[in-house]
Amino acid sequence: MPYVNIRITREGATREQKAQLIAGVTDLLYEVLDKPPAVTFVVIDEVPLEDWGVGGLPVDEYRQSLAAAPKS
Amino acid sequence: MPYVNIRITREGATREQKAQLIAGVTDLLYEVLDKPPAVTFVVIDEVPLEDWGVGGLPVDEYRQSLAAAPKS
Amino acid sequence: MPYVNIRITREGATREQKAQLIAGVTDLLYEVLDKPPAVTFVVIDEVPLEDWGVGGLPVDEYRQSLAAAPKS
Amino acid sequence: MPYVNIRITREGATREQKAQLIAGVTDLLYEVLDKPPAVTFVVIDEVPLEDWGVGGLPVDEYRQSLAAAPKS
Amino acid sequence: MPYVNIRITREGATREQKAQLIAGVTDLLYEVLDKPPAVTFVVIDEVPLEDWGVGGLPVDEYRQSLAAAPKS
Amino acid sequence: MPYVNIRITREGATREQKAQLIAGVTDLLYEVLDKPPAVTFVVIDEVPLEDWGVGGLPVDEYRQSLAAAPKS
Repeated sequence: MPYVNIRITREGATREQKAQLIAGVTDLLYEVLDKPPAVTFVVIDEVPLEDWGVGGLPVDEYRQSLAAAPKS
Repeated sequence: MPYVNIRITREGATREQKAQLIAGVTDLLYEVLDKPPAVTFVVIDEVPLEDWGVGGLPVDEYRQSLAAAPKS
Repeated sequence: MPYVNIRITREGATREQKAQLIAGVTDLLYEVLDKPPAVTFVVIDEVPLEDWGVGGLPVDEYRQSLAAAPKS
Repeated sequence: MPYVNIRITREGATREQKAQLIAGVTDLLYEVLDKPPAVTFVVIDEVPLEDWGVGGLPVDEYRQSLAAAPKS
Repeated sequence: MPYVNIRITREGATREQKAQLIAGVTDLLYEVLDKPPAVTFVVIDEVPLEDWGVGGLPVDEYRQSLAAAPKS
Repeated sequence: MPYVNIRITREGATREQKAQLIAGVTDLLYEVLDKPPAVTFVVIDEVPLEDWGVGGLPVDEYRQSLAAAPKS
């Protein structure tokens, strides 16, 4: 009876895409560990960009800093 | 100093019902493990139906599939 | 189909006490929100004392600091 | 930069099976949402059976209760 | 590659304050454990007051009860 | 009353280092959001290397693949 929590930045994932994530993770747990789909819970959390940090910056600023960096 | 996270689908739980969950869980931890209420945190997350999956489907579709299934 | 995560310090909770937490939380969700017990998951995490902080200290040190504080 | 937490009961999942879960979830997020694998974190938690409850019982007792139930 | 989840009550934290949390936690993990900032994820969840309980009460009621308590 | 969960790979963080994380996060929440230390909980989870994935691989394999990659 697995519980899977998928956390992504909120950037317009559609209902259909979320359904694909739910189906895909549930299938994976069945294939790899033989977990019956009826007891697999998948919960998706969409997180506003300003609430997700990486590289010490909110993710939108982080992406700008990468885009602005000189290419090696 | 317990931390309890209750995740439910967002389907109209009222403030009063949420207060009952908070009180009930806090009492339970006091009765079973003697945890002082002042140091028990309870956090409730309400999750949109399309973000909660079970049986490989978003929960609203899952319920429809159960309702449509032939009775044995 | 609620998911409840109970995080407590690891201090010898017995299997029976953990079963009481599981039963109690499941009953509560049935009573307050009419959630069927078969779809309520409860997961208990026991956390080593040195990995839980409060008041800026690991919890064992925090308790010692409280015990050593002068009573008002 | 997704973060995925997979929680399963501790029942002997092998390193190889866990690697399959990691690879599968990472691929899924790339296929569905175009998330680059290098920024997808997957964390697997294995939970002792006595710490996972369903149907108001620790999961090992719950399975026994299902096995003992009369078939309809 | 640490993952840090900061959960706070929703009470008007600004984007700038959240950026300070992200920067501060990322620096801390670099200083204490030498974790490269580029692989540290920080996710902030703001929780409505009615969904956060302490002392067996929603946090806004809890604060009122403290404010109303006679001083010793 | 913040709750902070720090998840890191299990690679020998000492009790002292964990105490530094607890103190540092608690201070940060006081400085940025004026949260009283007594109501800040910090929970550290150390995750075995084989249970943490990045780039579609368990983290130890991922590091080897980076080390083996030709430098540009």
